[in-house]
Amino acid sequence: KHILVVPGDGIGQEVTAVGKKVLDRIAAKYNHEFTYDEALIGHVAIEATGNPLPDETLEKMKNSDAVLFGAVGHPKYDNDPTAKVRPEQGLLKMRKELGLYANLRPIKLFDELLSASSIKPEILKGSDILFFRELTGDIYFGEKGRKNNGDTAYDVAEYSRYEVQRIGRKAFEAARTRNKKLVSVDKANVLESSRLWREEIQKLALEYLDVEVEYQFVDATAMILIKDPKRFDVVVTANLFGDILTDEASQIAGSMGMLASASIGDGTGVYEPIHGSAHDITGMGLANPMASVLSAALLLDISFGLKEESNAVINAVDQVLKKGFRTKDIADANTPKDMILGTDAIG
Amino acid sequence: KHILVVPGDGIGQEVTAVGKKVLDRIAAKYNHEFTYDEALIGHVAIEATGNPLPDETLEKMKNSDAVLFGAVGHPKYDNDPTAKVRPEQGLLKMRKELGLYANLRPIKLFDELLSASSIKPEILKGSDILFFRELTGDIYFGEKGRKNNGDTAYDVAEYSRYEVQRIGRKAFEAARTRNKKLVSVDKANVLESSRLWREEIQKLALEYLDVEVEYQFVDATAMILIKDPKRFDVVVTANLFGDILTDEASQIAGSMGMLASASIGDGTGVYEPIHGSAHDITGMGLANPMASVLSAALLLDISFGLKEESNAVINAVDQVLKKGFRTKDIADANTPKDMILGTDAIG
Ligand SMILES: CC(C)[C@H](C(=O)O)[C@@H](O)C(=O)O
Ligand SMILES: CC(C)[C@H](C(=O)O)[C@@H](O)C(=O)O
Repeated sequence: KHILVVPGDGIGQEVTAVGKKVLDRIAAKYNHEFTYDEALIGHVAIEATGNPLPDETLEKMKNSDAVLFGAVGHPKYDNDPTAKVRPEQGLLKMRKELGLYANLRPIKLFDELLSASSIKPEILKGSDILFFRELTGDIYFGEKGRKNNGDTAYDVAEYSRYEVQRIGRKAFEAARTRNKKLVSVDKANVLESSRLWREEIQKLALEYLDVEVEYQFVDATAMILIKDPKRFDVVVTANLFGDILTDEASQIAGSMGMLASASIGDGTGVYEPIHGSAHDITGMGLANPMASVLSAALLLDISFGLKEESNAVINAVDQVLKKGFRTKDIADANTPKDMILGTDAIG
Repeated sequence: KHILVVPGDGIGQEVTAVGKKVLDRIAAKYNHEFTYDEALIGHVAIEATGNPLPDETLEKMKNSDAVLFGAVGHPKYDNDPTAKVRPEQGLLKMRKELGLYANLRPIKLFDELLSASSIKPEILKGSDILFFRELTGDIYFGEKGRKNNGDTAYDVAEYSRYEVQRIGRKAFEAARTRNKKLVSVDKANVLESSRLWREEIQKLALEYLDVEVEYQFVDATAMILIKDPKRFDVVVTANLFGDILTDEASQIAGSMGMLASASIGDGTGVYEPIHGSAHDITGMGLANPMASVLSAALLLDISFGLKEESNAVINAVDQVLKKGFRTKDIADANTPKDMILGTDAIG
């Protein structure tokens, strides 16, 4: 099996190194042969080649069995809204070119982190949500630009029936293997694209009568996620809403530093933390590598079908937490100073 | 002073009645003369006239000094994505026709409700956020429709420089009277309309050098609001992001049932709870009327300049809470059964 490691920007470098180390250990322990290559994306790719997603990187991705991804982004571009070439373009182009239409974001709280969240433990205990975020459509990929002499800017949000069906189907299938509850999130009281979204999910619901479906408006979901996270099992939603809601939901898991994601679709799967490049802590050894380690676990499970190996990784994370080791983002007032470790040490 | 009461749908009826009662008491106590009229909007207006915002209602609004508003919406339309006439169209048309471009949503936690939230008290204590949600632009009002034989649906998000400037200016001015901290929320790493938004806020920042500005991506804000709500003072954002983030932020105040909003702009101001029509509890006497009462307080302050009267209302709410009275949404395990009151009793 051939794995392409694409660390990208900021803490992407540090955390992906730990994710790769874990894959190496799994290979050794279970007698697999994993080969690796590396490639550039984002700000580091712009610096090296002028292109946030060089053709070479895309080629390598297509020719790999899976991609272990870091993060992209740089404050330089964030502060310059007029920049034409931006790191995020590399990420978006990768998603489109690889046909990664389904982004799975499991939000699961390790028992040991119950108290690390800003939400009350009794509200959190037992929450276990699987998000399906659509990843290659919506306002991310519609036409965008300026008009009226540059005085007006616009972005088009767009969904086709086919796009909703294929992500919807994945979510229904997943709900079947879990608690058979699906929440579909949209803003159908205002948006036409949401109305089409709801129509298609309603049609699919007729094929999955064993799954109980609830339709929520995105504003309500944003509220209920915090008020009563246990109400959710599987959630399916559009690209932009999924972006916002899963970042919010990271608080259910104690920290964004614990959350992994899998982007799957037509070709090679890409596995990445949901956190960003975090330039404010880059190179300081403060980054929590667990999200990358858990991304490696998803990679083993989904792209390689290695369920036992994947569980071994999740267990290892659990053991580290049970022993009391913490990175700074998940430490609390009761964590002894000498149990707070850096990125490498905890990896 | 002439006040138009527009209860709208569902619990809008019950809570607005209490809001009006409070305005009456204020008039009596402080010797003001308030006259009232009533008008239809939303589902009840569709039932009566076929139009979610009858011309008569709009006329009456324009000729009033302020509007006390309830809520609109009905599950009938939510479950039928193909319905052509919808209650929400009345609300959106009202916002547009009255030029209500600034929606102020103060998120303030009454001390007595510290434990009513799903968020930990120590995280919440001292939070006090004022949201400025842009209300007449964005994807709410851009072109929308179907194409490719109805197989694709689209919505256009749009902002002009002028639209960003006028809401931005209101937010900067408000920050000046508070802690001089402004967070501007966008998705400038992906959206062109967000990049224009950021450009304009950056320009305004040069005029308000005494205000400290932070730029956040909406996904990050959704996370930080829960992780560390005290980090925010004034927040300014686009229509859709504001919709999602303020509903989420309602959890900071313990319950959506406590949150009022003011929509202001070119003409008559409109004051309404941020909660919806809640048909699941309509007519059961369970609705928390505080959001409508606090909307009346905002009305007195902003449209009538009656600061003392406005504070008297807020104090009254505080007294009711201090005495231990609660509606069901803000009661907790420690609230004695006989202190849990219905909509009218607590009003
Ligand atoms: C970096 C950014 C473009 C990206 C997104 O919005 O999709 C990120 O927030 C994510 O969630 O992967
Ligand atoms: C009812 C709906 C159209 C409305 C909105 O999205 O603006 C509501 O959620 C609000 O926040 O006032």
